Amino acid sequence: MKFIQTPVKGMQDFLPEDMALRQHVLGVIRETYGRFGFTEIETPVMEHIENLTGKNGGENEKLIFKVEKRGRELEKALGKIQGSGEMSADAAGTELADSALRYDLTVPLCRYYSCHKNELPTPFKALQIGNVFRADRPQKGRFRQFTQCDIDIIGDNSVMAEIELIAATSGALHRIFAEVGVSGFTVHIGDRRILRAMASSAGFAEEEYDEVFIILDKMDKIGLDGVREELLSGGYDQEKVDRYVSYFRLYQEGKAEDVASFIESTCADAIEDGAAKDMEMIMSAARAMISEDITLKFDPTLVRGMSYYTGTIFEISIDNYSFSIAGGGRYDKMVGRFCGQDAPACGFSIGFERIVTILKDLNWKEEGAGQKIAYLVDMKGAADRVTEVFGKAAAQRAEGMTVVVQPLKKNAKFQVETLEKSGYTHILKVYSDTQL
Amino acid sequence: MKFIQTPVKGMQDFLPEDMALRQHVLGVIRETYGRFGFTEIETPVMEHIENLTGKNGGENEKLIFKVEKRGRELEKALGKIQGSGEMSADAAGTELADSALRYDLTVPLCRYYSCHKNELPTPFKALQIGNVFRADRPQKGRFRQFTQCDIDIIGDNSVMAEIELIAATSGALHRIFAEVGVSGFTVHIGDRRILRAMASSAGFAEEEYDEVFIILDKMDKIGLDGVREELLSGGYDQEKVDRYVSYFRLYQEGKAEDVASFIESTCADAIEDGAAKDMEMIMSAARAMISEDITLKFDPTLVRGMSYYTGTIFEISIDNYSFSIAGGGRYDKMVGRFCGQDAPACGFSIGFERIVTILKDLNWKEEGAGQKIAYLVDMKGAADRVTEVFGKAAAQRAEGMTVVVQPLKKNAKFQVETLEKSGYTHILKVYSDTQL
Repeated sequence: MKFIQTPVKGMQDFLPEDMALRQHVLGVIRETYGRFGFTEIETPVMEHIENLTGKNGGENEKLIFKVEKRGRELEKALGKIQGSGEMSADAAGTELADSALRYDLTVPLCRYYSCHKNELPTPFKALQIGNVFRADRPQKGRFRQFTQCDIDIIGDNSVMAEIELIAATSGALHRIFAEVGVSGFTVHIGDRRILRAMASSAGFAEEEYDEVFIILDKMDKIGLDGVREELLSGGYDQEKVDRYVSYFRLYQEGKAEDVASFIESTCADAIEDGAAKDMEMIMSAARAMISEDITLKFDPTLVRGMSYYTGTIFEISIDNYSFSIAGGGRYDKMVGRFCGQDAPACGFSIGFERIVTILKDLNWKEEGAGQKIAYLVDMKGAADRVTEVFGKAAAQRAEGMTVVVQPLKKNAKFQVETLEKSGYTHILKVYSDTQL
Repeated sequence: MKFIQTPVKGMQDFLPEDMALRQHVLGVIRETYGRFGFTEIETPVMEHIENLTGKNGGENEKLIFKVEKRGRELEKALGKIQGSGEMSADAAGTELADSALRYDLTVPLCRYYSCHKNELPTPFKALQIGNVFRADRPQKGRFRQFTQCDIDIIGDNSVMAEIELIAATSGALHRIFAEVGVSGFTVHIGDRRILRAMASSAGFAEEEYDEVFIILDKMDKIGLDGVREELLSGGYDQEKVDRYVSYFRLYQEGKAEDVASFIESTCADAIEDGAAKDMEMIMSAARAMISEDITLKFDPTLVRGMSYYTGTIFEISIDNYSFSIAGGGRYDKMVGRFCGQDAPACGFSIGFERIVTILKDLNWKEEGAGQKIAYLVDMKGAADRVTEVFGKAAAQRAEGMTVVVQPLKKNAKFQVETLEKSGYTHILKVYSDTQL
């Protein structure tokens, strides 16, 4: 039997220096959200297939890793497949599986809340950190297992949820990036209700919204002119398209800074009650809470991919990087699919892997975590001093120092260099007569 | 489509109070091992099937969750199964899968080390915390996904590895359990080389060892007389059996406290060079390092299930509990199966789930992590004060306090009680005229 040394395709091993960075970032996240009253939860990485294929996951549903049935159930499934001549590979795959690996943390959160809501406070402020899995084509910076970090508030239908999420997430990112001297965050805030009202005001029919929004979502790549062209070539009426595009011109000209008047001049006739007021309240309260060097911006071009969003949507970008490092929004209808009863919900997902990648590229280094000491014992001449050395090490560890004890190797120079590379500053070779 | 609220069979959701305990224990583990120079690593939860079915996992190999191939590969596998009329369900299951979920952290560690050894220091001291998966029959206290916590030293063939592992693990457990006033640990230390020498001295043939050890391993359940009877009914020669049993009588009579004379009177003729001396050195150095209230015991009855152990084996038990809470040993031949070249290795696995269960049963409570404050804002009369309240909250959070801001609910009494239950001690209802 030949064993394979590399990780499974598209997955990663983390070296100690990678893990130090990852744990450090997670520590800041846990502490920051903790101060906002978020409490941590955990769900299994395996989830019911039914829950993962119910249109809650959008495109991710195509990337599911399915877990095989076992024993008698596997036999039955194989029999069923062989019995029916014409089952598609996809249907056979589902028949053979009884669970699958989750592709995000939102579906498990909704299941979790519906299962445990009687044991949880209202509103429930959850922090969930865990691995998710997508059978994506492997490519640079994209992996088939990666860590997500989600924070959600369930049971609060007021804008306080949005404000808390924006403040906590901005605060966590601000702390994380300050260590490498990076600033220049922009919090983009939109609202699906405003997005819909603008489409409606322009004259689009409700069944056209999804496609219109998919095209609009490309704006940062193809520009507003590109959006216009794609809408026209999609067969939409020129008058509607031009009206729609004119709204975004107002935004580009800086006319969206005053939210109320922007809405007035675009979609006041079509907007749901409360949506405009919510946005104003979020903007002003969030402004008061977040650091002055973070830009806060009402952004009517924001779409966010997932169709489950119902109200506010947000994204945080960082200067000089083309991708966002956090995103989320309100999804008031999704918990109800599990509970049978709707519960207001709003969440942020932090792009943990992206953040870690940026910090690594910027050569993040761990702050000195106390003294690091190494004893290298000559096992030929000083083996009888091992107990003494370990006693000394124990005393120093009790004081919080990091201490390693190793046999002194023949190639002592290389041994010392390796330790120095790992941050050991006090390295003592212990011979029979060495003073400890 | 109906969504399922409960977790996948045999798996668990963790409530916030569970997670607080789990994270606390992991924090102590990380800090304690950190002081011993262990560095954290991570491997993917998915592993190559070939690596998991190569007899490195013992009985656990029967409990593997296999992950299905996808797309074209799945089609090919289905074709192959349908083409061959007589493939067993088990073989078909393997044909359909291209990876599986790991059942322990040791196999991934060996793969990891063999893949990255040129980037790692020697000796390499690794801490690995992660989920493992076993399709066990669900039962009380046993789950199909659970957290393992392993520490290993690779590349140190001296007893320093054993001593460090025993000291660090005893230290971590001591700290964890001190918080709930539990002490009474016993570190049991044995050696596969002594175990084999005793079997040899008694007259057993090498090919009989495995079965003899499986029977011996039941001693804590069936007693020494039970072991004797089972060996006899297994068809082993009475003279051999009685000689073998007599060694363990010596142990029961307390004659194993002096390791050297115990070995002298049982298996001195058959023992490998160095094994006795190693044991003495481990006992004396470990004794000097660990807390005085921890018992350290040479235990020649210790077997440990996994066949990959080559030398020292150890286990930590706790008074009044029938199960061990940590176990491990030296496995010098396993890394070589991946590398092609042997590397000495020694490790401890902490029974994380058992420890957490004990602490939970003993009503572990989180130490006061600073003040917890809640503002309940009357959204009818004081909505215009939201920004002010959030500003106050931001200032208090910056000082390290935990602060939540919520809309004041109709049922304020219940809202306050819920917050008090979550540890909030300062709860202020904010009306239009409330002084902040």
